[in-house]
Amino acid sequence: MADSNALPLVILAENFAKLPGIGMKTAQRLAYFVMSMPEAEAQAFADAIMTAHKTVHECSICCNLTDKELCPVCANGKRDNSIICVVESPKDVTAFERTKEYHGVYHVLHGLISPLDNVMPDKLRIKELLARLSDGSVKEVVMATNPTVEGEATAMYISRLLKPLGVKVTRLAFGLPVGAVLEYADEVTLFKALENRNEI
Amino acid sequence: MADSNALPLVILAENFAKLPGIGMKTAQRLAYFVMSMPEAEAQAFADAIMTAHKTVHECSICCNLTDKELCPVCANGKRDNSIICVVESPKDVTAFERTKEYHGVYHVLHGLISPLDNVMPDKLRIKELLARLSDGSVKEVVMATNPTVEGEATAMYISRLLKPLGVKVTRLAFGLPVGAVLEYADEVTLFKALENRNEI
Repeated sequence: MADSNALPLVILAENFAKLPGIGMKTAQRLAYFVMSMPEAEAQAFADAIMTAHKTVHECSICCNLTDKELCPVCANGKRDNSIICVVESPKDVTAFERTKEYHGVYHVLHGLISPLDNVMPDKLRIKELLARLSDGSVKEVVMATNPTVEGEATAMYISRLLKPLGVKVTRLAFGLPVGAVLEYADEVTLFKALENRNEI
Repeated sequence: MADSNALPLVILAENFAKLPGIGMKTAQRLAYFVMSMPEAEAQAFADAIMTAHKTVHECSICCNLTDKELCPVCANGKRDNSIICVVESPKDVTAFERTKEYHGVYHVLHGLISPLDNVMPDKLRIKELLARLSDGSVKEVVMATNPTVEGEATAMYISRLLKPLGVKVTRLAFGLPVGAVLEYADEVTLFKALENRNEI
């Protein structure tokens, strides 16, 4: 691209290529698309990046991202503050909110323990979680990290820290996803589904 | 996303979702990624959008995108100005430049004739192409639009305009792509490859 095109376009494409899942070819396509936008739309895009970056920060209670002092969940007086759902990222909060069935509050870790990626427990918002448990008002902590090696390890690590505090620690259920075809379920999932079977 | 997250993040995600091939889920992921960038990097991204938009315009000769008066190809005194390769978009110029075998110049149409998408010939840079042919210095025009319905129609339309000017108009060769497996070639390509066979 460099030899036949304008340098600002190359720089823009390189910025797009830094985003996850976007390779140099797609980045180039996106850069050309931005060029074809009306100027006001391009300005809105550029502004949105900086506005989000400048005004969005972590909620002072649950560490979810927000542009206010508290996130909408923590600011909502009707939520049950005695149950905390511990998740890896703000995206997971969105996923739980979509179910419309969870009425407790959240705690966002902003990562999972992963020594290979150099993410140690001190990089996560674990201190902040422990601070929330100090007044004894929390009855249950649901470990809702992903069912992966890192997610399991993080859930285990945190549950060991919480047990001595006398708080009930639970983990999301494993089993068949709704709508799944049994034939294609992997052995571990199928075993978990069998092990956790319920009477009907 | 709206109910549990910060509004500036929603706005940023909506801006990403306007880009081609990026749905709302990916847009959300990209917005979160931008949040995790250092501020300077986010600023560089926002600046790159506006710099590209403000400084990049069409080359006054070939209509390719450039941040100078002339694009690097038109500004290069060593290129053969008697042959013009007519392409749909700046990306196609990049593709030809990668071959390192073409030493003529280009003309970028910025689209293909497509009545269904409301793109009529007057929206393309056809006037500019005709203007370049007025002094008789151009010997050949290579129609290098894509081998699609729109690409063929555009090549036909332009070649009919150019024929009366006495300039030689050629079209890219059709045939098997190098490295292709004959078994999987479609009938039309195979027929073209047979029809245009060369003596060895």
